[in-house]
Amino acid sequence: MIKLIKIPVSGQGLHDVTQTVNDAIAEQLAKSSTYAISNNEGLCTVFVQHTSASLIIQENADPSARQDLENWLNRLVCENDPLYTHIYEGADDMPAHIKSAITATSIAIPIINGKMALGTWQGLYLWEHRKQKGQRNLVLHLGV
Amino acid sequence: MIKLIKIPVSGQGLHDVTQTVNDAIAEQLAKSSTYAISNNEGLCTVFVQHTSASLIIQENADPSARQDLENWLNRLVCENDPLYTHIYEGADDMPAHIKSAITATSIAIPIINGKMALGTWQGLYLWEHRKQKGQRNLVLHLGV
Amino acid sequence: MIKLIKIPVSGQGLHDVTQTVNDAIAEQLAKSSTYAISNNEGLCTVFVQHTSASLIIQENADPSARQDLENWLNRLVCENDPLYTHIYEGADDMPAHIKSAITATSIAIPIINGKMALGTWQGLYLWEHRKQKGQRNLVLHLGV
Repeated sequence: MIKLIKIPVSGQGLHDVTQTVNDAIAEQLAKSSTYAISNNEGLCTVFVQHTSASLIIQENADPSARQDLENWLNRLVCENDPLYTHIYEGADDMPAHIKSAITATSIAIPIINGKMALGTWQGLYLWEHRKQKGQRNLVLHLGV
Repeated sequence: MIKLIKIPVSGQGLHDVTQTVNDAIAEQLAKSSTYAISNNEGLCTVFVQHTSASLIIQENADPSARQDLENWLNRLVCENDPLYTHIYEGADDMPAHIKSAITATSIAIPIINGKMALGTWQGLYLWEHRKQKGQRNLVLHLGV
Repeated sequence: MIKLIKIPVSGQGLHDVTQTVNDAIAEQLAKSSTYAISNNEGLCTVFVQHTSASLIIQENADPSARQDLENWLNRLVCENDPLYTHIYEGADDMPAHIKSAITATSIAIPIINGKMALGTWQGLYLWEHRKQKGQRNLVLHLGV
């Protein structure tokens, strides 16, 4: 019912985790003799264990929509804002906390036919707000 | 446990879905011989299958609060921003994606006495960010 | 499975509820003969019954990050904006509704080892957006 997933990130931006999460759901359903998700239906909750990365469901077709979104948020929550006092972890640190605060740390998505019930144009993304490469921890919960 | 709901929308703005969702919960509880929500308690997760509409719990009493909210967001995420490159689906398209990103795609609400445990002044709204009329798909999950 | 919690608030700002929620989970697990959360795993959903307070998971180490976040949001959603028409409940009322709209009313957090599976630097906060002292109602749902 609980699965930890590590997501490699290449830097700031949206990282598609749709397939990774659907694969984890499929893996769990294959063990359904120990835990039944009846009719392959249920609820998948994805939680990010960080305060400078978040989760977002966005347009999966045209990359320009995701790029505009990224640019818009970078302009709204700018670096080196004289308002900031929390500055010793880098210019992208405090903006990352703010971006995380106005987006989602946790998203619950119904499961239908053994997969997240996303709309046609929806993908699930880990939104990295720091610039460095690294990896992020997701916690996945599957419930009936 | 899973129910699909189609919500007609008249254009940009908040559309009250509180009663619709509570009715769907009541309908499910009436079938509780097949699936028991013990003591009429549980968890209702509402998910919107679109990237240009979102969900919001807001003040249900005074329409001026919802109108101010709408106006404030329209000013923050304006149309025809020279930053946008994703422009071929209309002036309200990219703003709709951004508005969706900074509001909720999914909301989980505890169920008490067979209804969403909303506060006195809370209503659940589908927030349509496009201007055209149409309909939007919600996926409802009810869990124990 | 459902627990109501009242949180005293001292005015605008982030109020740490991490321990309060973990205590409520522990109390529920101690009653697990009537309701089993297997292996001390499950899902905790926290819901705030107000439209001028919200929930946020943020940096728990350095208070300057939370203060910068508060200051940034106060600048973005300012008081006495000539746009507002909903003004009769005080200068901090309409900003509180807007802040609530762009942050979270509900957060679902996986439970591991009988506690919320928060990351090392994450705390769960009730974000009060009004200036007066008072108390706020949280609804906690625990599921398997």
